Amino acid sequence: MDFIHSMKFPFVIVMGISLFALAVAFWLINWVMAKDTGTDEMRKISDAIKSGAEAYLRRQNSTIIALSSVLAIVIFVLYAFVRKSNEHDPAGPMVLALCTTGSFIAGAACSLIAGYVGMWVSIRTNIRTASAARTSLNDALRIALRGGAVAGLFVCAMSLIGVGGLFMLLKQLGFPYEKIPFMIVGYGFGASFVALFAQLGGGIYTKAADVGADLVGKVEAGIPEDDPRNPAVIADLVGDNVGDCAGRGADLFESTAAENIGAMILGVSLIPYFGWKGVVFPLVARALGILASIFGVLVVQTEEHEDPMDALNIGYYLTSFLAALGFAGASWWLLRCEQAPNAWIYYTTCGFIGILTAQAFVYVTQYYTEYKYRPVLSIAEASKTGPATNIISGIAVGLECTAIPIIVIAVAILSSYKLGVMALGPAAGHTGGLFGTAVATMGMLGTAAYILAMDTFGPITDNAGGIVEMSHQPEEIRKKTDRLDAVGNTTKALTKGYAIGSAALAAFLLFSAYLDEIYNYSGHHITVDLSKPEVFVGAMMGAMLVFLFASMAIKAVGEAAQTIIAEVRRQFKEKPGIMKGTEDPDYGQCVDIVTVGALKQMILPGLLATAGPVIVGLIMRGFITPENPTIAAEAVAGLLMVGTIAGILMALFLNNAGGAWDNAKKYIEMGNYGGKKSEAHKAAVVGDTVGDPFKDTAGPSLHVLIKLLATITLVLAPLFL
Amino acid sequence: MDFIHSMKFPFVIVMGISLFALAVAFWLINWVMAKDTGTDEMRKISDAIKSGAEAYLRRQNSTIIALSSVLAIVIFVLYAFVRKSNEHDPAGPMVLALCTTGSFIAGAACSLIAGYVGMWVSIRTNIRTASAARTSLNDALRIALRGGAVAGLFVCAMSLIGVGGLFMLLKQLGFPYEKIPFMIVGYGFGASFVALFAQLGGGIYTKAADVGADLVGKVEAGIPEDDPRNPAVIADLVGDNVGDCAGRGADLFESTAAENIGAMILGVSLIPYFGWKGVVFPLVARALGILASIFGVLVVQTEEHEDPMDALNIGYYLTSFLAALGFAGASWWLLRCEQAPNAWIYYTTCGFIGILTAQAFVYVTQYYTEYKYRPVLSIAEASKTGPATNIISGIAVGLECTAIPIIVIAVAILSSYKLGVMALGPAAGHTGGLFGTAVATMGMLGTAAYILAMDTFGPITDNAGGIVEMSHQPEEIRKKTDRLDAVGNTTKALTKGYAIGSAALAAFLLFSAYLDEIYNYSGHHITVDLSKPEVFVGAMMGAMLVFLFASMAIKAVGEAAQTIIAEVRRQFKEKPGIMKGTEDPDYGQCVDIVTVGALKQMILPGLLATAGPVIVGLIMRGFITPENPTIAAEAVAGLLMVGTIAGILMALFLNNAGGAWDNAKKYIEMGNYGGKKSEAHKAAVVGDTVGDPFKDTAGPSLHVLIKLLATITLVLAPLFL
Repeated sequence: MDFIHSMKFPFVIVMGISLFALAVAFWLINWVMAKDTGTDEMRKISDAIKSGAEAYLRRQNSTIIALSSVLAIVIFVLYAFVRKSNEHDPAGPMVLALCTTGSFIAGAACSLIAGYVGMWVSIRTNIRTASAARTSLNDALRIALRGGAVAGLFVCAMSLIGVGGLFMLLKQLGFPYEKIPFMIVGYGFGASFVALFAQLGGGIYTKAADVGADLVGKVEAGIPEDDPRNPAVIADLVGDNVGDCAGRGADLFESTAAENIGAMILGVSLIPYFGWKGVVFPLVARALGILASIFGVLVVQTEEHEDPMDALNIGYYLTSFLAALGFAGASWWLLRCEQAPNAWIYYTTCGFIGILTAQAFVYVTQYYTEYKYRPVLSIAEASKTGPATNIISGIAVGLECTAIPIIVIAVAILSSYKLGVMALGPAAGHTGGLFGTAVATMGMLGTAAYILAMDTFGPITDNAGGIVEMSHQPEEIRKKTDRLDAVGNTTKALTKGYAIGSAALAAFLLFSAYLDEIYNYSGHHITVDLSKPEVFVGAMMGAMLVFLFASMAIKAVGEAAQTIIAEVRRQFKEKPGIMKGTEDPDYGQCVDIVTVGALKQMILPGLLATAGPVIVGLIMRGFITPENPTIAAEAVAGLLMVGTIAGILMALFLNNAGGAWDNAKKYIEMGNYGGKKSEAHKAAVVGDTVGDPFKDTAGPSLHVLIKLLATITLVLAPLFL
Repeated sequence: MDFIHSMKFPFVIVMGISLFALAVAFWLINWVMAKDTGTDEMRKISDAIKSGAEAYLRRQNSTIIALSSVLAIVIFVLYAFVRKSNEHDPAGPMVLALCTTGSFIAGAACSLIAGYVGMWVSIRTNIRTASAARTSLNDALRIALRGGAVAGLFVCAMSLIGVGGLFMLLKQLGFPYEKIPFMIVGYGFGASFVALFAQLGGGIYTKAADVGADLVGKVEAGIPEDDPRNPAVIADLVGDNVGDCAGRGADLFESTAAENIGAMILGVSLIPYFGWKGVVFPLVARALGILASIFGVLVVQTEEHEDPMDALNIGYYLTSFLAALGFAGASWWLLRCEQAPNAWIYYTTCGFIGILTAQAFVYVTQYYTEYKYRPVLSIAEASKTGPATNIISGIAVGLECTAIPIIVIAVAILSSYKLGVMALGPAAGHTGGLFGTAVATMGMLGTAAYILAMDTFGPITDNAGGIVEMSHQPEEIRKKTDRLDAVGNTTKALTKGYAIGSAALAAFLLFSAYLDEIYNYSGHHITVDLSKPEVFVGAMMGAMLVFLFASMAIKAVGEAAQTIIAEVRRQFKEKPGIMKGTEDPDYGQCVDIVTVGALKQMILPGLLATAGPVIVGLIMRGFITPENPTIAAEAVAGLLMVGTIAGILMALFLNNAGGAWDNAKKYIEMGNYGGKKSEAHKAAVVGDTVGDPFKDTAGPSLHVLIKLLATITLVLAPLFL
């Protein structure tokens, strides 16, 4: 009984579920790997994708490891030698420096591994999905989803094991549990830092290859998409893996890690109510969410003539339902106390708000990016008068689509805050309310593993389609993979909606964690008062950073695409046999060139995102007035908050405009407004190409940027004081 | 001597200078009107433009008058019957209601008149410029600039007379001078309300006509720009007048009015130092700026083979120099006191910062929109690979161009704030600093009359070019008007940079005025603390409002353009003689259709901008917590501030991306990358068309939106308490 009431018990549960999830992931790997790998021709293509993707990731990871190592040293030096230690520190300067640096390295390493595993499975599942499509749609669907689930489970389990493990380790070393969340903030920063470069590099790679392949292949040479004569076609297929799998894997890994630590920091402020239980609640709630996702993944199956999306939706609803049940159980167990016996009911409701918010984002994303609805239809209609009106109308749709999500987030934040205040009554006040928003975020993240499985499903089916196309399979099999690919496009769009929604909801939690940390280190409760000129300037800088970062990310794709265009033109010119089909193009050379280009181009925006907030914070220190020693920290908070708002809006704009252009093109290709090769179609292709770097490079990178801003300020907060 | 030391003396100076400026304006009108009006053919075209523009403005103004009347009644009812009056009110509820409503009506009326006068002169100057171009470039330049100067002087003088006159009137009625600025905030709101609709309606009109004329004329029918066979060509020329003259006239009118009142409100808080002198300082400083502008306009002249832009620049530098001198004098006279005998030196420096900020914005705008520099060249280069890369590269340039202006504004705000703090010492603290930012804004606005003259120069020379083209003048005369037209494009871009720069710098002053007003009405000094969920949600709403508004404005152009496209197609079909030149197109019908379309389309975005902040404020009242009675006012402040930041960035993006696309096309037309009719040119035309609603509808409307947010919250602040 002592054990059951001790802090060890929930940790055993969290670790047990996490290890179980890893075991399931390994079982799924075996299940997928045992499937048939099709014909020799298919294997040849798949091997080319595999070696290209692995070569890229190896080089990308070396670059990231080098950057992270430098940063780890900088963090250590700053914490150990530059920073003035004070009586508020959770530990001595050297111990704190070691913890922060160590957790940074751990977070970075786990984020790298999470991204790598996602891609490892994806590049092995694609061919098995393609092969299965020759016999059964259901088999192909299940292989693709289960391959994706490996990534989902791995990412979520690793994030829990990392945060929980560091917590337990420091607890064993004798640190008081209420100090530990502040000592492991480096974990979130390490994870975001790696995620930013993984998403940027992968995003630039995938779209440079895509845009490059399209512009010389489709437009100049007039050959169809995924045509084996195009030297850039393998690079394009590689791009789907390194961008969508590796990139988004790292993205969601850092989301769950950072938000977990943030929620634990807020749990610390409720120790007078829930003791240690509030601190470990976020871990338990998410562990139960992983369990729910496992069930969700395993039930998915479809019939030959059903819409595969329906099957995926059933899995998602089941996951949401089970996660909600688990959430209620965890709240009942951990969020009750004598002063507030009914608090758990309020907080359970907060969790439900989070789950509903996720659903709302999924619906809004569908509305703005599917051709069943007005926005995409209006773009398709505007394509009739040429590319200019197509672009104007797409941009108008993108700007418009920000409205409902912001209202949804506003309602979610205000209502979970009010419920949190009601849960603990006026005595706890603001603190209880903030915890309410944190609990809502945990609710939203409960289904993360399933969502990530659906996301990785996207590039797997996309690749499967490419392999089927390039290996000249019969028309009916192509139709099958096309159906799966269309579903994959939808799930990719949905996960982007989910990722930005969770970033938005989590934002408030992460700000509050930052303010709590400032209090923890300085003993001052600061405001973030925009009427102070320093804070207002910080806020302007935050919003500007988002615009500049988006510009750099978009430009990077263009620059990298130029190099591949030049290469493809060179090959067409030097090897005239390629177009006749008598000579093989040199796929490897294209893969190499995009690799080098993407890695070169990711550095500048990555450094801007990392260095921007630090520079602003340090310059602000020069403006410190004696009567206000925390003004630099406050200005940085302004940068963080307004940067986050601008980032959410910009990401929504870029993601949804891109998705809408893509589907407007698809709608025309289905035979509307003249179908393929009509003037309307040409106009729609322009929109689609413009949307590519929007939705697959700049937009997703902004998700990570938002959280990087939060984690970098969390780690560096003590320096601004 | 008593008179010289009394408050009457500066008012006599302000009113004297304003009336003198009006006299100069009338003299300039006579000077321009006495010029030759060219051939019969030219007069025929000019008359068509004139009657179209006047018909449009009549109908637009009826709509605006109707909307303003409704709003005036609403304001009166809210102030007189809904609002709870309290002991802090500057006057009784009924008097306050009358003052606010009355000043609203006065502001709206003056704004309407200012816009109308600008257009009245412009549509009469265009033909005289065209006619003069037949003999002398210098004459044409001087006619166009002096015609523009009528608008500039009229707008600035009217704004001073309005604010100063209301102030004197209330003073005569016995109200204490320190209360008066709070009683006339309606003037700024009335001005912005009218300006918003004028800029929206005019902006939609001009770009719907332009895009419509281009798409059917240039693209479908293959006839050149300004070809008289195009039925939409007169509507296009009318558009330049109603968009650029009437719209921007109302825009700068409300800028100067709103910022003047805001600065006077801040002056009230410095009464312990400067007494009434600080309150009237803004009026005096601006009056001297008008005087400087008159000199600047009168010295401009050019030689036949010089670049006319050099002549305009000399005028601008002279104006800036004289305005700086006047500013120093006004500071020396009004901003000294026993406690701080050197304050005037610091504040003079603040004024210089404002003048330099204006220069910096002008330079940055040139860098991003002229084809001498990297940004435009990169877009031209990207056009080689088609419209998609042209668009991607233009958007990247637009997003990037936000960085330097934001840094400039940050430096200007922080340095003028610090100087203001130093001026009065730590005892005045924050208040002195805020007044520093207000003084910098006054410095920036000092040259407004000259800037506006240059702005109106744009549509005048554009129209002159159109008239010369349509009346089949010889090639060499066209070249002359083309040169003037190119300069006009530059000055139009520069004034947009100036307008957004002054909006950004003024933003901080207007926020502070809002907070002062809250204090004045409630006795509470509020913060704008983003860490409160209500304020954060307000901030999100503010940024979202900007995105949604931009979307609506862009979409409105598309919708209105569709109607004109349909009409031109109908005319081409029903009157086959038009294309052969044997039949006259029905210009009037096109003008009517755009008029109806633009007026219909301006309503929705206009209402969003006006109702948005009010709805958020009123909903927030439902969340008022007992311990914080001012939370709704604080949330609205968050909306205002973050909406302003988002608005500045979005406007910079839209204006400069549009300008850069325009000039990338011009660069290609000069013979680069294959010149006219090349594939690169076609791509560049797409970018130019996309940029049209960006730079001439959504962007300029956002300038007004930013200030409307400020003035509407100023007027409605007491309601949120």
